[in-house]
Amino acid sequence: MPPRNVVVAQSGGPTCVINNSLRGIIEAARRRPDRIGKVYGGRFGIEGVLKEELIDLSATPDEEIALLRTSPAAGSIGTCRYKLKKGQDEDFARVVEVFKAHDVGYFFYIGGNDSQDTAHKVSVLANEHGLDLVAVGVPKTIDNDLGDAEFTLLDHSPGYGSVARYYAHYVRQANEENAGSRPADPVLVIQAMGRKIGYIPAAARLADPRREMPLQIYLTESGLSLQQLGENVIRQLESDGRCIVVVSEGFDVGEVGSVRDNFGHVQFSSSQQTVAQVVVNYLNTLKFPVPGKARGQVPGTDQRNAIAYASSVDLDEAYGVGRHAVEIALNEGNGWMATILRDRSGSAYNVHYDKAPLEKVANSERFFPKEWLAPSGIDVTDEFVDYARPLIGEDWVSVPTVAGLPRFARIAQVFAPRKLPAYVPQTYRK
Amino acid sequence: MPPRNVVVAQSGGPTCVINNSLRGIIEAARRRPDRIGKVYGGRFGIEGVLKEELIDLSATPDEEIALLRTSPAAGSIGTCRYKLKKGQDEDFARVVEVFKAHDVGYFFYIGGNDSQDTAHKVSVLANEHGLDLVAVGVPKTIDNDLGDAEFTLLDHSPGYGSVARYYAHYVRQANEENAGSRPADPVLVIQAMGRKIGYIPAAARLADPRREMPLQIYLTESGLSLQQLGENVIRQLESDGRCIVVVSEGFDVGEVGSVRDNFGHVQFSSSQQTVAQVVVNYLNTLKFPVPGKARGQVPGTDQRNAIAYASSVDLDEAYGVGRHAVEIALNEGNGWMATILRDRSGSAYNVHYDKAPLEKVANSERFFPKEWLAPSGIDVTDEFVDYARPLIGEDWVSVPTVAGLPRFARIAQVFAPRKLPAYVPQTYRK
Repeated sequence: MPPRNVVVAQSGGPTCVINNSLRGIIEAARRRPDRIGKVYGGRFGIEGVLKEELIDLSATPDEEIALLRTSPAAGSIGTCRYKLKKGQDEDFARVVEVFKAHDVGYFFYIGGNDSQDTAHKVSVLANEHGLDLVAVGVPKTIDNDLGDAEFTLLDHSPGYGSVARYYAHYVRQANEENAGSRPADPVLVIQAMGRKIGYIPAAARLADPRREMPLQIYLTESGLSLQQLGENVIRQLESDGRCIVVVSEGFDVGEVGSVRDNFGHVQFSSSQQTVAQVVVNYLNTLKFPVPGKARGQVPGTDQRNAIAYASSVDLDEAYGVGRHAVEIALNEGNGWMATILRDRSGSAYNVHYDKAPLEKVANSERFFPKEWLAPSGIDVTDEFVDYARPLIGEDWVSVPTVAGLPRFARIAQVFAPRKLPAYVPQTYRK
Repeated sequence: MPPRNVVVAQSGGPTCVINNSLRGIIEAARRRPDRIGKVYGGRFGIEGVLKEELIDLSATPDEEIALLRTSPAAGSIGTCRYKLKKGQDEDFARVVEVFKAHDVGYFFYIGGNDSQDTAHKVSVLANEHGLDLVAVGVPKTIDNDLGDAEFTLLDHSPGYGSVARYYAHYVRQANEENAGSRPADPVLVIQAMGRKIGYIPAAARLADPRREMPLQIYLTESGLSLQQLGENVIRQLESDGRCIVVVSEGFDVGEVGSVRDNFGHVQFSSSQQTVAQVVVNYLNTLKFPVPGKARGQVPGTDQRNAIAYASSVDLDEAYGVGRHAVEIALNEGNGWMATILRDRSGSAYNVHYDKAPLEKVANSERFFPKEWLAPSGIDVTDEFVDYARPLIGEDWVSVPTVAGLPRFARIAQVFAPRKLPAYVPQTYRK
C-alpha cells in the first residue's frame, strides 16, 4: 500500500497545550514514511478543509515543530467554531471531496465534544462514499467536559491541567494582593471560564488546598443566587476583613446580553455585561462591615494561552495523546478517540494512553460530580483536589525567549495546491 | 549615638517587585547594627503607623526575607490608600508621636507621588517637633508617573519594568490566540491600567517592536473618540481580518459609573462599567467586514502581581534602590528619595542609584511624552521602545515552588508592644 496523506485540524477554543498534540501527531507521522505521506493542517480547522486551505506542514522544519511544545493557543494552524451540523449535507460531501482530492487517508481532529461528534460523522460518511479514511479524535478542552461521567472513557482533557495551574497560581497571587490591599480593596471578584461545567472555577481551590484563604468559589452548578453570594461575602468580611470570589462566567446573575457562537454556546466574553461586573456592582450596593469596595477582573482568553503557567504534566500528556492517536490510526483503524486514563492502583499519579469509540464519546456527557461540590455550595471537596492536583504538575515549564519575548513556533505558510473549485461553507452563505 | 529604629511602610497599589525594595531596606539595615536597631513594618502602610500596628520584622528569619524577592504584591506587610491630607493635623501629630514612642530614627516610605509628598511632610513636621527623624522615599509605581518630565530625577519607577514585561508577553500570547481564533473572535479588546498616564498600555508595543501584528494601542492621551476607535478597527479588519485593541482604563468612553479611592483617584476596577466592556459593546453594534464578534478582557490586579512575568532587571533595581535608601539615610540625612538614573553614555543599559530632594519629587509631574505618541494616535514611537525595552530584561525569573505552587515569604505576625492609647485615623471617623 502506498503511503497516504494526513489532515489534522483543531476546533473550538484553544488551550495552552493544543499545539503539543499537533506536535505529537506531526512527529509520529514523520517517523512512519512507510505509511504516511504529507501532513496537512486545516487552516482554521474544518473551515480550512471546506475551503481547501491545507497547510503543507512538511515545509516546516523539525526545529519549529519542536517549538510547538511551548507555543500556546492556535496561532500555528488556527481553529474555528464552525460546526458541521446535521443536515449540512453539502459541507459533509465537500469534506469527503477535499480528502479524496488530496489522497487523505487519515484525519485527526483535535477538539471537544462537538469535534468528536464531527470526526465520527465524517468517518462514517467517508466510508459510505468509498473513501478509505481513518478518523481519530484527539481530546482537547480547558473545560474538562469531554468524556463520560464515570471517567472511564477519559480521565481528563489535555488543556485542563494548564488552566487549573493558571488558577492555582493566579488565586495565590490574588491572595497576596487582597491580603495586602484590603484597606481599600477588601473584595476581589475573578471571573472564570467554563460556562455550565465548573472544573475551571473549582481549580481555584488548588491555590489553597488547606483552606487558609477567605476564598469563595461559585460554580454555575451551585444554584446559588446573587443575594446569597452577597450574604456570604458580608459574612466573610465580618470574620476575615476580606474576601476573594471566583465566579463562573455561567453563574446565574440574570440577563447579561448574551452572544452565541456557531456551536450555539453562549460566548460570555462577547456579552454586553460580564458576570464579574454584575457581582461587583451588586456587592457595591451592600453595606460592607469594613472600609473599601469590591473590584473585579476578567482573565478572559489569557487563562487558556498563558504559557508561563502551563502544566508540565499537561504538556507531556497533550503530546503523548497526539502521538498515540497516530498509533491508533495505523494499528486500530477507524472510529476512535485517543484517550488518557489514570492508573487507579497505588497513590502515585500515572496515566496510560488508550482508545475509546468515537461514537461512545460523542454520546457521552461529563459533568462536575455533584459529590465534589461542598455542602456550603461555595467550595469543592478534597476528592476534587485529589483528582485535580496531579494535573498541574510541579515546577515551571521552560519557555524559550529571544530578546525578552517568548519565541513561538513559526509555521511555514505553504499550502497544498488547489485541485477543486472554490467553495463557500454553508453557514457563510447568505 | 545608640542605634535607632526603622519604620518602613508601603503605600498605594502594589507591584510585582515592591517587596524587593522592602527586602533591600531590611537586608541593608541588618548589616548596620551600629546605627540601626529594630526594623518595623507599618501594617497596611501609614494606617499601621497611625494605629500603632508595627510588625517587628526582626522576628522573621533571613530565609523568609530572601523570599520577598519573588513574593509579589503587598501581602507581606500590607499597603493602603490612606492619604495624609493637608489639614489632617491630628494624623500628622500621631505619626510623630508613634515614631517618638518607638524611638524611630528612620522612616522609609515606598510609594508613588502621593507617598513622596507624605514622606516629605512627615520629615518636616518631625523635625519641627524635636524628633530627629530621617525620612527617605523609595519610588514605586507600575504607572511610571513618578519623577519629572525630563527623566532627570528618576529614569523609571520600580514596578514598571515588570508590568511592561507582563504586557509584552500577554499581548504576544493574545496575538497567537487572536491569529488562531479569528474566524469566531476577530477582535480582542484588552484593558490596561494607568488611568491618565499611558506607560502601561504603551508597553503593549514591546510585544511587537517590528509592528507585525494588527495591534492598536489607545492611550488616554490619544484624545481619540470611541467612534474613531471603531473606524480604526473596521479598517484593520478589512486589511488583516483581525485586530487586537489595548485600551487604557482611562480612555474616554463617557460615563462608566466611577468610584474614587482615598487619594481621590478614580478606581476603575470598582466602576459600574469597564472601558473594555463599553468598547466591546460598541464594536458589536458595528458591521464587521468579517464573521465573528469582538470580545474583551480585563487583566485587573493580575498585571501588578503576576510574578512569573516579573522583569529580572526590575527585581534587581527594586532591591538596589531599597538598599540605597538605607545608605542615603545613614550618610546623607533627611529629605531625599532614592532614585534610579540611566547612564546616557554608550548603548548598553546601565543604571546607577542616586538621590533626589523629596520636595522636588513631590512637586514634579511625569507625563507620557507627547513625542512618543505616534502620529496615528494608536501607536507609540521607537523612542519609547528604546526607553522601555531594557526594563523588561531577558529571561524568566526563577520563582521557587513547593507542591506545584509558588512559595511566597511568610512574615511573622509579631508586633511591637503598644505604648500609646488607641487612635482612630481622621478619615475613618464618623
